[in-house]
Order: sequence, then C-alpha cells, then structure tokens
Amino acid sequence: MRDWERISTELHRRYKGKIEIIPKVPIRDLQDLSIWYTPGVAGPSKAISEDRDASFDMSWRWNTVAIVSDGSRVLGLGNIGPEAALPVMEGKALLFKYFGGVDAIPLVINAGDPEEIIALVKAVEPSFGGINLEDISSPKCFTILERLRKELEIPVWHDDQQGTALIVLAALINAFKLVGKDLRSAKIVLFGLGAANYAVLKFLKMYGVNTGKVIVVERPGIGILYDSHPRLEEFKDSMPHWYEAALITNSEKITGGPEEALKGADAVIAASKPGPGTIKKEWIKLMSDNAIVFSLANPTPEILPEEAKEAGAKIVATGRSDYPNQVNNSLGFPGVFRGALTVRARKISDGMCMAAAKALASYAEEKGLREDYIIPRMYEVDAVAMEAEAVAEEAIREGIARKIIGRSDIRNEVRTLMERPKRILNVLQKAGQLP
Amino acid sequence: MRDWERISTELHRRYKGKIEIIPKVPIRDLQDLSIWYTPGVAGPSKAISEDRDASFDMSWRWNTVAIVSDGSRVLGLGNIGPEAALPVMEGKALLFKYFGGVDAIPLVINAGDPEEIIALVKAVEPSFGGINLEDISSPKCFTILERLRKELEIPVWHDDQQGTALIVLAALINAFKLVGKDLRSAKIVLFGLGAANYAVLKFLKMYGVNTGKVIVVERPGIGILYDSHPRLEEFKDSMPHWYEAALITNSEKITGGPEEALKGADAVIAASKPGPGTIKKEWIKLMSDNAIVFSLANPTPEILPEEAKEAGAKIVATGRSDYPNQVNNSLGFPGVFRGALTVRARKISDGMCMAAAKALASYAEEKGLREDYIIPRMYEVDAVAMEAEAVAEEAIREGIARKIIGRSDIRNEVRTLMERPKRILNVLQKAGQLP
Repeated sequence: MRDWERISTELHRRYKGKIEIIPKVPIRDLQDLSIWYTPGVAGPSKAISEDRDASFDMSWRWNTVAIVSDGSRVLGLGNIGPEAALPVMEGKALLFKYFGGVDAIPLVINAGDPEEIIALVKAVEPSFGGINLEDISSPKCFTILERLRKELEIPVWHDDQQGTALIVLAALINAFKLVGKDLRSAKIVLFGLGAANYAVLKFLKMYGVNTGKVIVVERPGIGILYDSHPRLEEFKDSMPHWYEAALITNSEKITGGPEEALKGADAVIAASKPGPGTIKKEWIKLMSDNAIVFSLANPTPEILPEEAKEAGAKIVATGRSDYPNQVNNSLGFPGVFRGALTVRARKISDGMCMAAAKALASYAEEKGLREDYIIPRMYEVDAVAMEAEAVAEEAIREGIARKIIGRSDIRNEVRTLMERPKRILNVLQKAGQLP
Repeated sequence: MRDWERISTELHRRYKGKIEIIPKVPIRDLQDLSIWYTPGVAGPSKAISEDRDASFDMSWRWNTVAIVSDGSRVLGLGNIGPEAALPVMEGKALLFKYFGGVDAIPLVINAGDPEEIIALVKAVEPSFGGINLEDISSPKCFTILERLRKELEIPVWHDDQQGTALIVLAALINAFKLVGKDLRSAKIVLFGLGAANYAVLKFLKMYGVNTGKVIVVERPGIGILYDSHPRLEEFKDSMPHWYEAALITNSEKITGGPEEALKGADAVIAASKPGPGTIKKEWIKLMSDNAIVFSLANPTPEILPEEAKEAGAKIVATGRSDYPNQVNNSLGFPGVFRGALTVRARKISDGMCMAAAKALASYAEEKGLREDYIIPRMYEVDAVAMEAEAVAEEAIREGIARKIIGRSDIRNEVRTLMERPKRILNVLQKAGQLP
C-alpha cells in the first residue's frame, strides 16, 4: 500500500479544502442581485411562509445534505473530536457531489450527549433536504438514528449503519445466487455486532432472512449471543443492540465462541477488529462447502482473502479496493440520496433500502456474476444511477415523495445531476481554474 | 420600482437554488480518492487531533462562514420562520462568494430561545471559520452577539448590527468632512433604536464621538431617552439597549419627541419604520445648516431624499440603490470576512471594525467626495478589497490573527480570492454549464 497518509497530509496542506461554493444563477450585472437578494427575495420568502414545503422548490434545500459528526469514532482513529473529523466529512461531501450530484455540507459538532445531537439536528432540519450521520460511536448512534428517523420530515441516514448494510446485502444476494444456496434460510454468522453488523442484521430481516438461523458472535468473554445469555440483563441498558440481537437470533441457542458459531455456516460477515489473524484459517475450515466470507475490517481484513481461500472459502469480499469484491459505501449513499432528493422524499424507508440493494445486485447480475464480481465496482456509475432511480420510484410508490414524477423524468434528472459535477470539473480544469 | 418580488419568485422556482458545491481538488481517477478520502485522509485527521488549529490549514474551514438565522425578523416581513428565511440566507451566501470569495452556508434553525441559539452556534463552531448572524429579532440579538463574540474563537458578526453600523460610520465620516464639521463633537440624532442604530451608537463611541451629545428618539410614548426617563427601570429588563443608551447619551437631558430632538442637530440617522412621512419635512427644517440626513428604512425611507433636500438637508443617504449614497451592507461583510478569514482571525475586534470603516471612507475620499458620493458604490470592488486588507492588517497588529503574513501577501490573496468567483462564473457560462 502506498504511503497514502503522508501524501494526503501534504496535499491537504496545499489545497486547504476539497470543496467550495459557486453561484449557479446568472449574475449579468448588479441589477440581477435585486432578484436573488433584496428586494426581490421577499417574494420567495413570502411564498414559503405560507407553505413550508415550498422551500424545496425555491432554494437549494431540495439537493442539500448535512454530513453530521461529533468525531466520536472517526475511521479507525476513535474519538478524535469534531475538528479532526472535518477532513473526513469534507471528503465525504466531495464524494456526495462527485458520485451523486448532491450538495453536501460537513457539519462537525461539539456535542457528545445523544440528546444534544438529536436536538441539534432537529434544529438545523429547515436548512437541509437530508441528514447523513457519520462516524458517531455506538451504542449512542442507534438511538440517535432511530429518533431522528421518526422525528424529522427529511431522510436521515447513518452511513456506518445503513450504508454498509446496504452494500453487504447486495453482495450477499449475489454471492448466494452464485453458490446456488437460498439466502433466506441460510446459516449466517455475524462476527462482531457494532454499528455495521447491527444494521446488517436488520437488513437481513427486512429482506426476509430467517434470523433464527443467524448467529452473532462477539469478543471473548461474551461469545455467541442467545436469548438466555448469562449477561443478557446487563446488555439491556449498556449494549441494547446486543440485547435485541440475542432475542431474535440463534433459535437453537448455540453457545460458545467463533468455532461453535462458524461450524457449518454458509456465510460469515465480519465487521470487528482489524486483522490479520482476527479470524483464523482453522475456523473458516469449519464452515460448510462453498463458504462465503465477508471480512470487512479496515485497513486490514480480519482474515486476508488469500488465507480465507486457502481455508476453503469460495467467495471472499473485503472493504479494500486492492482486492476483488470491495464492499464500498460509495456505491450506496450517493445513489440513495440522489434518488431520495430527486423526489423530495420525507424519509428513507426500509423499502427504499431494499430497492437500492436489489438494484445494485441486479446490475452486477446482468453484467455476469463471478467469484470475483458479486457487486458493482466504484467506477460503474450506471449502477449508482439505477440504484437512485429504484430508490426514487419506491419513494413514490410508498407515498413518501413530495414530488411525483414519471420514470423517464426521474431517469433524466438523476443522470443529468450525476454527470454535472464531472462536466464542471472538466471545464474548469481546461480553463486553468482548477488544478 | 420593477416588480422584483414577482420576477424573483418565478426565477427562484426555475433555478431551485442559487449556490452549489463543487470539488476544488484534482480527481484524475478513482485512485485520487484515496488521497481525499480513506485511507489517506487519516493523515490530516491525525494532524488536527494533535493541534485543532490545523483544521484551518487542512480543510475548507478557514474560508467558510455559517449564515445563521432563526427567521425571527426577516427583511420587513417579521417572524416568518427558518424555512422562509432560507432564500434570503442563500442570497447572502451568493453575495459572500461573489463579492468576497467567501464560502458561506445558509444555516436556518428551528430555535427561538437565545440560549438555544447560543448553544447551537457553539456546537457548530468546529465546522466554520466565522459566523454571520442574520435577521434575528431584537433585543435577543444583542445578548446572542455579545455572548458568542466572547465565547467563540472565530469571528462572529451580526450583519443587522455591525454590518449596517460599519457603512453608516464610513458614510458619516465623509459627510462631515464634506460639510466641514467635526463628527466627534457633533449633535447626532438616532431616530429609532433597534439593532442597527444600537450598533451605530456603539460604533460612534468607538470612533471617539462624544455620545453625551447624541440624542436617541424612539416611538411616540417613549420619546427622547435620557438617564432619568420615567420608564427607565422598565427598560432595564425588557429593552436593555434603550436602557444602556439612556445612560450614555443626551447629557443635557433634553426631553420630548422628534421636534425637540432634531432642533439644531447636525445629522440624523433614521433606522425606524418605513415611510413616507415617518419623518416630516418640518422636522428637518429645525436642523442646523448643512444638515446630514440618513433615512435608512426599506423599502421606503422615513423621508424621501427629494423631500429632505427641499427641507434644507445638504447630504442625504438611504438604503436604496435607485438614489445616490446607498448605505449598502454588501460593501461591508464581504470585505470584513475576507480580511478576517485571510489571516484566520480569532475574532472581529472593535479595531478591525474601525479599520474597515476608515478604509471605505478613504476610498471614497480619494475618488473625490461630492454631495451624491460620500461612500463607495457597490460595483467599486477595489473599495471592498482595500477594506479587507485593512481588516487583515489590523487583526495581525492586534495579535488576534492565527496566520501572520506580509502586506503584499495579504493583498495578493485577497485580490485572487475576490476575483476567482467571477472568473469561474465566466468560464462556466461560456461552456454552457451555467445560465
């Protein structure tokens, strides 16, 4: 791996920011400012004061997302605080625009308590068309997401939960297709139950997977969860997501650790601590034939793909771009928000998440599934566009879109908005206004 | 006046937003994203976690301002709420970039209580290099500004206070020069004491004006303020800015209404309720020779310039672009923030405000003062650049700049950043990417 951090530090110092704001309306002379500012702007303000939803038609709100983080769990760096989280959130804003044509604002905040974060996001709701929570530690991230999804009238997304789960589900659908097994009745092991795998569990359930056959295995001292785990009562308050998972998984009440969990498993989704060696080859050997191994820790997977393969895994996915089958959130959030914003959705429903996962899976299937191609690659922008269209159509179907438009209008708007940033970059680079 | 509101409403619907975000770093291929996002971005994040101020060097923070409003006093429309305030704040963001090269974000918030607004702005501080408060009702805006100026380590500005006062002071300096009177010992009447004139009073004091000779006159039933006004104790809680003004102005304890106030006055600054007829011609006739009349209500001045002139006023200024001597905030905030951000100032000090006012006044003076030219016009961008440079130099002089650079470097950076948005607009328009 190249020395990305050193190069990045140097280039961040040189460019001093990765995004900027530009006007998108004509300013031919100063008279035009009477349209865009006073006295003319009193017109749109009056219209919105009579119908708040008109703010989606007469300002940039409809296409604008806040990327909110308290910096409590940034990358693998832990609780480094809001200022230090800013370059990450600004990078995310860059991806939002580059891949999804979405105007996203990094909003790093001095606020640790979940109630404070909830209050703050509720307060800024009128400024934005959507909220992307990012790098907020668990378990508080669960409450924050759940409350905000209920209490706001715009889409709320926690990328470390739904974002990852979306791509995992899409990849899993295709992996099972490829090995000819039925995902809904498979024995699936979730190795580690943090933000990502908690959301994976929810997504599996939504998709129709029998969660009684899912096994969750946590760190030594905790082991496999089940509904009569000796520490269950303690989890109820301190680790409510473990508590919840213990009740709905493992109906056979298997006990023990990784070996007992993985024995005979069809698939393992590991989202725990970086390897190598977090998952041992011997454990993979205990799995059933044609085993599926998602080893998602960054920067080093729990078990390296070559080792997993040697131990008999048929299909391996990681979070890394230098291996095949990258589980990459950039395939998710730009498309999901592009779709949701295009129809001014009031939320991102479970159905919209499922539509997104299925659209990504279908794209790869149509291209032709292989052991090293179960999920679209990052440069396959058509996959993201199709995902966006599926999300927008589902929002209309469920009656949570503020704007009802036909399929071809959705398609046109999605494609135009997704292509625009690349065309702008091109033009500005050629004119020497961008490096 | 053209039907600006109708045209504006139509065009706001057509363009759906006035600003957008673009990348400002090279993205040659997807490998580059490893620099701007993971894994490389861990480098800058680690550097900032060791030194929070490095966030000004390695993200867009240094050039980014939040335009914060609760929508409680928008234009002349009153308390229309945050959503309805959004087009105004987005328009302000457009001006910030167009005139000052500043990346500004509209942040309209659901929060009425001053403590809530203060808490929210403190929470988002790590995201921004400055805060521009806007259209927040008085008297709560006074506490909010004062507390935030003390408690934040970035510049805080309330444009309805300092912004207006800055331009008024600059214009007043030149008006007095032109009539050959001494501003510091003049009899000045403040007609109405809301956010704007309260700040004018503070600025006059900072400039060295003898406030004992300043007369504040408020609405009927209140009249002229003085330190033994019958309702003084009541003001202490409900109208603390009136209370404060009563103590430091009108040392002769003149009582009465507009006629008593204006008798023999050298200048009147009216920032009260729209005219016509809020100020009567007869009252202007009571003023001293070569009277100076600033009649700033929008959209209709308290007294129309032609009437004021007929009544004997020598110099008249208004808030309107269709009369000479427009007191226009767009000459202020873009330059003040451009200067403060260029040197990463920790605050906007009183000294920086004075430097800005003097720079604007000097610019007009060098061009040649006339009765119809006491302040630069909006298209005189050099005036704003000189203002920005003066602000930056003063910040360095007072030791509140995070970045110390020489005069020519300041000048280069200011000019480059101010020209950039116009060049970008040009290029994109020619390429058909902007209308």
